[in-house]
Amino acid sequence: MPILTLDAARELAAAAFVRCGAAPAAAESTARALVEAEADGLTGHGLVRVPAYAAQVRAGKVRGDAAVTVGHPRPGLVAIDAAHGFAYPALDAAVAALPAVARSQGIAAAGIRRSHHCGAAGRPVERLAAEGLVAILFANTPAAMAPWGGARAVFGTNPLAFACPLPGRAPIVADLALSKVARGNIVAARRRGEPLPEGWALDAQGHPTTDPEAALKGTMLPLGDAKGTALALMVELLAAGLTGGRFAAEASSFLDAEGDPPGTGQLIVAIDAAALSPDAPERFAELAGLIEAQAGARLPGARRLALRAAAARDGIAVADALAAEIAAL
Amino acid sequence: MPILTLDAARELAAAAFVRCGAAPAAAESTARALVEAEADGLTGHGLVRVPAYAAQVRAGKVRGDAAVTVGHPRPGLVAIDAAHGFAYPALDAAVAALPAVARSQGIAAAGIRRSHHCGAAGRPVERLAAEGLVAILFANTPAAMAPWGGARAVFGTNPLAFACPLPGRAPIVADLALSKVARGNIVAARRRGEPLPEGWALDAQGHPTTDPEAALKGTMLPLGDAKGTALALMVELLAAGLTGGRFAAEASSFLDAEGDPPGTGQLIVAIDAAALSPDAPERFAELAGLIEAQAGARLPGARRLALRAAAARDGIAVADALAAEIAAL
Repeated sequence: MPILTLDAARELAAAAFVRCGAAPAAAESTARALVEAEADGLTGHGLVRVPAYAAQVRAGKVRGDAAVTVGHPRPGLVAIDAAHGFAYPALDAAVAALPAVARSQGIAAAGIRRSHHCGAAGRPVERLAAEGLVAILFANTPAAMAPWGGARAVFGTNPLAFACPLPGRAPIVADLALSKVARGNIVAARRRGEPLPEGWALDAQGHPTTDPEAALKGTMLPLGDAKGTALALMVELLAAGLTGGRFAAEASSFLDAEGDPPGTGQLIVAIDAAALSPDAPERFAELAGLIEAQAGARLPGARRLALRAAAARDGIAVADALAAEIAAL
Repeated sequence: MPILTLDAARELAAAAFVRCGAAPAAAESTARALVEAEADGLTGHGLVRVPAYAAQVRAGKVRGDAAVTVGHPRPGLVAIDAAHGFAYPALDAAVAALPAVARSQGIAAAGIRRSHHCGAAGRPVERLAAEGLVAILFANTPAAMAPWGGARAVFGTNPLAFACPLPGRAPIVADLALSKVARGNIVAARRRGEPLPEGWALDAQGHPTTDPEAALKGTMLPLGDAKGTALALMVELLAAGLTGGRFAAEASSFLDAEGDPPGTGQLIVAIDAAALSPDAPERFAELAGLIEAQAGARLPGARRLALRAAAARDGIAVADALAAEIAAL
């Protein structure tokens, strides 16, 4: 299995996207995000996505020449049109625009419409926290979860990510999808021929199932039962309804080159950490200390930082088949 | 069991608070909120709270003469000091201030510090949604939940409430605490002498327990396991860290008259629903329709509205002992 430096992995992925029709800047932004996710151990949002992303550019499902536009409809709002390109250039535009607006207004939000898979949702908010902002990202994804009591999927797995600056050290970053488990776990159980644990999924009639085949034709269960579907509804309304994005039930897959662009949305809210209470950053550190003082407990994101440091030092291992597939694109 | 009109119940509670030392306006605001919760079927935040609230005013743990102050540290931010009075006058001030700011800026937030129990968290955001805003409330509460893997409580049950306007009908309102179940369920199991279901609570050493006694000395488990504690951390940082409120681990109980004021915090974020995408309210209605079209599914908040209508028509039943206790305060 070849070991690549992060730079080499980024160049490999970016070159593949360009060969498939992506503009160089969009290819670079997307490749960087995938390699960062890979380095953080979030491999489901890493290089494994390159072939499917490239196929979508080639098919025009992701517009390779999308021009991101940034509007300011109100003093505290940034309206971004990802123009059916990759999400990452639009997320970069949000991360670039929000700090100045959040500092002057105290709070700001960026809505992204006609977007695509946002990948590791913690990264944009982490970048905003590095600028002294508390930030929350809401993203919707293609249909995966039914309303509580229902059988047809109208919500995605709808990640929510949060970051908060800490004085003199890396921010707190929490990043969670609202499904109980990722769909990849069901695909893996089917491959192994094993039943699912109870509580992961419903069949197409809305009944609990432990059969991976039935689950893949049905819907994913949320974390926290009915409360989780309420959170998924909130994310769907914020990320897509408010921004002009497409709802989960209207969105095509992020995983294949079939159909129209998914056109989902993201909303990022950013607040100047010290604007309401000047000692807020020190207070964040106090709470972090209460957590880290407990044996067995840690801050969310701690494991990711350790993996990131190791990847920067040692590079990342890319499976032979995947490396060959990317090089051949 | 006497049946009271909502007006009569409010007057009963407000008069009790005034007799215990609350200023009339604060007493009225607080009594209104408790009766509204009672009417919505949220009895845990209803009239049952009156004796404990009154005792806290009498003891000075809730300042009866607290003067709420409202500042505007940035164009998009409202900083509210509840001054260790009841939370409701401060929440009323937030609901009064936010619509104009959110409309002009596009997004606004109100932080409330030196606050107290916010009661039914859905109500302030519902009032903002009635003004055409999408709103989220984050509130921290006294220590109840440990960080994942830990044993000492540093988060409250930390409710999060969300509301979204729908054209021509009542808003969508979701309101959820982040503990798997409310602590009252454990108290009830102890009273009945029954074991707890697994997954509700940990003992004081951080081990899972089904013993109600051990659970009440330990911590509550979150919804969604580690993801739920990440959400509780987010709410703690937003509601208390950002606003200047006290963290769960520093806050005295909302339930008794012992100790200093709890001094917890609330943060409300409000966004003009149509500012990023003019047809957003119609899109919200489309998603609501996809949910309501499914047999067995409903919008969050639907049950509450039905109970509210019944209470407005028929009044509310107040247990004899509680009515007598309130009248005797």
